[in-house]
Amino acid sequence: CAAFESIGETNDGLDTFYLLFAASFVFFMQTGFAMLCAGSVRQKNVKNIMLKNILDACGGALGFWSVGYAFAYGGADSSKKGFIGNSGFFLSGFSTGGELIGWFFQFAFAATAATIVAGTVAERCKFEAYLAYSLMLTGFVYPVVVYSIWSSSGWITAFNADPFLGCGMHDFAGSGVVHMTGGITALIAAKILGPRIGRFYDADGNPLPEPVSFPPHSVALQVLGTFILWVGWYGFNPGSTLAISSSASAAVCALAAVTTTIAAAAGSVSALFTDMFLSRMQTGETEYDITMCMNGALSGLVAITAGCATLAPWAAFVTGVVGGWVYIFVSNLLVKLRIDDAVDAVPVHFGNGMWGCIAVGLFAEPGRTANAYSAHGNYGLVYGTGANLLGAQVVGLLWIIGWVTVIMTPYFLLLNSMGLFRVDSIEEEVGLDISHHKGAAYDISGPDESTVAKFEL
Amino acid sequence: CAAFESIGETNDGLDTFYLLFAASFVFFMQTGFAMLCAGSVRQKNVKNIMLKNILDACGGALGFWSVGYAFAYGGADSSKKGFIGNSGFFLSGFSTGGELIGWFFQFAFAATAATIVAGTVAERCKFEAYLAYSLMLTGFVYPVVVYSIWSSSGWITAFNADPFLGCGMHDFAGSGVVHMTGGITALIAAKILGPRIGRFYDADGNPLPEPVSFPPHSVALQVLGTFILWVGWYGFNPGSTLAISSSASAAVCALAAVTTTIAAAAGSVSALFTDMFLSRMQTGETEYDITMCMNGALSGLVAITAGCATLAPWAAFVTGVVGGWVYIFVSNLLVKLRIDDAVDAVPVHFGNGMWGCIAVGLFAEPGRTANAYSAHGNYGLVYGTGANLLGAQVVGLLWIIGWVTVIMTPYFLLLNSMGLFRVDSIEEEVGLDISHHKGAAYDISGPDESTVAKFEL
Amino acid sequence: CAAFESIGETNDGLDTFYLLFAASFVFFMQTGFAMLCAGSVRQKNVKNIMLKNILDACGGALGFWSVGYAFAYGGADSSKKGFIGNSGFFLSGFSTGGELIGWFFQFAFAATAATIVAGTVAERCKFEAYLAYSLMLTGFVYPVVVYSIWSSSGWITAFNADPFLGCGMHDFAGSGVVHMTGGITALIAAKILGPRIGRFYDADGNPLPEPVSFPPHSVALQVLGTFILWVGWYGFNPGSTLAISSSASAAVCALAAVTTTIAAAAGSVSALFTDMFLSRMQTGETEYDITMCMNGALSGLVAITAGCATLAPWAAFVTGVVGGWVYIFVSNLLVKLRIDDAVDAVPVHFGNGMWGCIAVGLFAEPGRTANAYSAHGNYGLVYGTGANLLGAQVVGLLWIIGWVTVIMTPYFLLLNSMGLFRVDSIEEEVGLDISHHKGAAYDISGPDESTVAKFEL
Repeated sequence: CAAFESIGETNDGLDTFYLLFAASFVFFMQTGFAMLCAGSVRQKNVKNIMLKNILDACGGALGFWSVGYAFAYGGADSSKKGFIGNSGFFLSGFSTGGELIGWFFQFAFAATAATIVAGTVAERCKFEAYLAYSLMLTGFVYPVVVYSIWSSSGWITAFNADPFLGCGMHDFAGSGVVHMTGGITALIAAKILGPRIGRFYDADGNPLPEPVSFPPHSVALQVLGTFILWVGWYGFNPGSTLAISSSASAAVCALAAVTTTIAAAAGSVSALFTDMFLSRMQTGETEYDITMCMNGALSGLVAITAGCATLAPWAAFVTGVVGGWVYIFVSNLLVKLRIDDAVDAVPVHFGNGMWGCIAVGLFAEPGRTANAYSAHGNYGLVYGTGANLLGAQVVGLLWIIGWVTVIMTPYFLLLNSMGLFRVDSIEEEVGLDISHHKGAAYDISGPDESTVAKFEL
Repeated sequence: CAAFESIGETNDGLDTFYLLFAASFVFFMQTGFAMLCAGSVRQKNVKNIMLKNILDACGGALGFWSVGYAFAYGGADSSKKGFIGNSGFFLSGFSTGGELIGWFFQFAFAATAATIVAGTVAERCKFEAYLAYSLMLTGFVYPVVVYSIWSSSGWITAFNADPFLGCGMHDFAGSGVVHMTGGITALIAAKILGPRIGRFYDADGNPLPEPVSFPPHSVALQVLGTFILWVGWYGFNPGSTLAISSSASAAVCALAAVTTTIAAAAGSVSALFTDMFLSRMQTGETEYDITMCMNGALSGLVAITAGCATLAPWAAFVTGVVGGWVYIFVSNLLVKLRIDDAVDAVPVHFGNGMWGCIAVGLFAEPGRTANAYSAHGNYGLVYGTGANLLGAQVVGLLWIIGWVTVIMTPYFLLLNSMGLFRVDSIEEEVGLDISHHKGAAYDISGPDESTVAKFEL
Repeated sequence: CAAFESIGETNDGLDTFYLLFAASFVFFMQTGFAMLCAGSVRQKNVKNIMLKNILDACGGALGFWSVGYAFAYGGADSSKKGFIGNSGFFLSGFSTGGELIGWFFQFAFAATAATIVAGTVAERCKFEAYLAYSLMLTGFVYPVVVYSIWSSSGWITAFNADPFLGCGMHDFAGSGVVHMTGGITALIAAKILGPRIGRFYDADGNPLPEPVSFPPHSVALQVLGTFILWVGWYGFNPGSTLAISSSASAAVCALAAVTTTIAAAAGSVSALFTDMFLSRMQTGETEYDITMCMNGALSGLVAITAGCATLAPWAAFVTGVVGGWVYIFVSNLLVKLRIDDAVDAVPVHFGNGMWGCIAVGLFAEPGRTANAYSAHGNYGLVYGTGANLLGAQVVGLLWIIGWVTVIMTPYFLLLNSMGLFRVDSIEEEVGLDISHHKGAAYDISGPDESTVAKFEL
């Protein structure tokens, strides 16, 4: 009837608007990453890292337009399973607004996966190498992960007619798909690239007695970036319902906003106070480290990303608290392994990406899971419905690790062996801004005193 | 009929989305407060103030999840009156998306009330004391204020079946509930805590001949924060319709956006030029003070918050202009009283929170008030319908001042007498970043000159 | 029927919410401009430029409320043509929420046009002169342009019953209306105002052998501003559908989000690599200039603004790539002409505003144009439907140039001849912050070393 048709039009508009909002917020996270990374590095590399942040957004757009989206979603069909999509290159055949806005939303996710890597390898990675692998990531590696978990033809997706273990992997907004993919790439890159000079080894390669921390050049920019990321997450998680024109999707969206908030808060408090107590046991002094507070919040956010739509608020709290611990543990582990992560992106995104996938296997609540996915009977371990979902989550995260490792390790090794990966040590010491980008990022000199004196006469 | 059912689903989605949007914008204001506070303090306390800003958002989330929301809205019933809510602790019993997204929106408001205090007591308040009272505020003090004015069981709410003076207090988006609550707490805290060393008294407690202003360490961060706050206000004020799926709520939302804009602009221009003229009369020089411009805009925003839905655009203009004057007057008054407000939050939030409540009593326009509330016959004084609304506004603001004072004064006095409130003077002089947070917020040193020289060979 | 009525209410709410969202994002661009301008200038002028940025937003609000909107849209009627609107001063007669939220959206655009100028004339323009012409711009000059192109009574609008050349000018979101208007004003002002001391001439007016670039004081603020602008553009372009409650408008919105993204990315990559290759040919060194990357993205955004709703994604890509070249060309041309643009706003907004208008004449795709406007039969030149649309675009851009030049040139000349336009050279050298705004924007001094030493005992 005509009234129904008219409702259909309204719903078209509402759902398009919803994805425009959500994608814009996710894209805003690029600003957050740029500020967080810029604040974290030394002053001599600020322009370099921000240039990489801008360019992976741009490269992500072009890569995802040309081939990425086609690989990620092209020709999906829930009655079949496949490895990679094969239609929609350059948005060809896109006829509806829904398809176009869907591309915009998915692009913003792809750009997020790419930019996670930038911070870890900051201060010593060649600019051209960074471009090469960020295109590789958004154009091919990430789309294959997306296809497997989010398209209806993926081998482990929850959306296939015959899902893996009867439920498939439940990674609602991408703890695994986005954050683990970016995070494991960062880990491999950091391992192959080696630490910054003076972090674990001196300029001649001799190990230092203690690891040296390089202080961030601006904590204000770090906090700005962290807050922007948190805000952007309200597009990332609730937006992953992909539509809002039904009561069911509205309920999922609302739950996601609540669990996201609680997990972020819990992660922040957990990391800050755990670190304070651990430090106090060692040094006797009570110091609160704002880095813990920020990375704890981000850890909670990454961890809840998979389960934002299926966990009860109490489980979001637990996920956040544990997320703070995971962060501290993985961060310390990297230092022990002498792997240098300039912004601690690996603990945040890889460590807590894994924990987030597992948390769903433990805590996915039956009613909420039935609402967000379907009533397939396989829920979190604590609800006593068996371990199928947990099994799918673990297999899924191993798949992500395996796939990315198999592709990116030889790629980085090749770049490295050809001398294309790491800058010269003299360039590293003088900083990338002066050596590659026409000078320092700041000039805060004021007017000279004689001029001021003349003026004040 | 089926079409109606379908419209109901669409409306569920639309209203949920609306609150997601509005709450995200309100939460974004945390970023604004953090940047504004950070920019306003001296470089030696930047990490400390930002850590407080992050943590009161996190503490606010946990406090409002556990008990705050239950105290603020639990079990409200417009046929009764009460003092405090008593159901919904830890979100228990929340079954619909609407309830969950409502929590998210209200949490963002609670966090705003808490963070207002941070700036005022910056640079000398102990970290643990700050946490203690920000939890107290979001968990108990603020929820009681909310219950009285915004829940349908409040004693002075406009939403009760039998409202106070026939109309109840009209504080649409919280000039009183949010800004006065935060602002009066800040005032009490500043009074008990005492001024920063060197502001009105030297290190030995001797009064200085003239108050000393501490220049903000970064005006750029202040402007960033101010603009973000202004932007966030478009979630704060229009969002307070709580729904958007009817023509009436759409009209309220639209009006709120317009009045918010006009009042902010008027407040900014008013404060800037008034200050310029006043200074010129004293010094003969024409200087434009960007602080006036920023705090004037924020003053206009705070002042229009109560009346954004009920004032005509011209009245919003008047409210903003007077808001600028209120700011200057209260700011100067505090200096005369030797009360040290590190970011002038008391004039902005407390001074203009009061003015905003009163402005509604003066200017609430009958038609718009009937649309936003109901046609109860009591409107702004200038419309000649009597003084009931103005009376309710004044009683309401006295209630807020009284309640907060009665609870927070002994609380702060207790903290102070136990030595838990203020840092040692040596910690204050060296700055809180070095004494409590592992070092300075900035390291803008570049590469050393010999390295650069070597590179340029 | 009742269901239809109810849908109408929902649509009212949805469309109001959509414009609230879009206008808030456009207003957020003020933050972006402020950060970009502040980062671009020297440290001694940071407060001055940011004060101008805040005040043109405020002035824009008051100017557009009082007269601007009435001039731009008042009394429009598609069956007539006129020069300027004449009703709705001070929002009088506004009865519906749709009208009010429409004002809010249009105000945000007007403020954008005004603030474009601020950066170009930074570091030497008098504060009062800036206020005078930004009010002139938002109150009169810009509204006349809007009336001609966007109101239904304009002489060259696409929305008249009898449009110019059968189609009228197609400037969907304002490459011409907003960006050219701001950009040509900036160009005229820069020409009349003259370059900053030491840029092309020394303090005595003798030409320098080579133009001197003044390094931006903070690239971090520039990047922050650029990203915020990009994000805000998702309100600017998709929001220009003005409604979202139909499938057709949803499709336009979705397309605009996609083309905006692709053009920005293409512009950024184009400018960065073109500049790198050009520099390498001259100097032999491979350097990546982040300024190119940022201004290239902004150039792509400005260029796609006219055609965001009517160009295919491939054409958006071409528009962005050419936009990067236009930026480099115009930027170099200005230097050759010794016109000093402190933030390169003229190449970005004026150069690419023109290119954006022309691109529509070349690439407007028939189906998408029919959806966004109407099936009038006049499309982009490459589609072989004749040159009417291209003709209308060219006439439209000449009209904008002509109108703004005729009004603003004598205005600036007058200001200049009366000595009201440019600050004294001593004020310029000492910087505007010290000479007019009570001191420097930063004080990053830490605690003195003796205090720290005492603390560490």
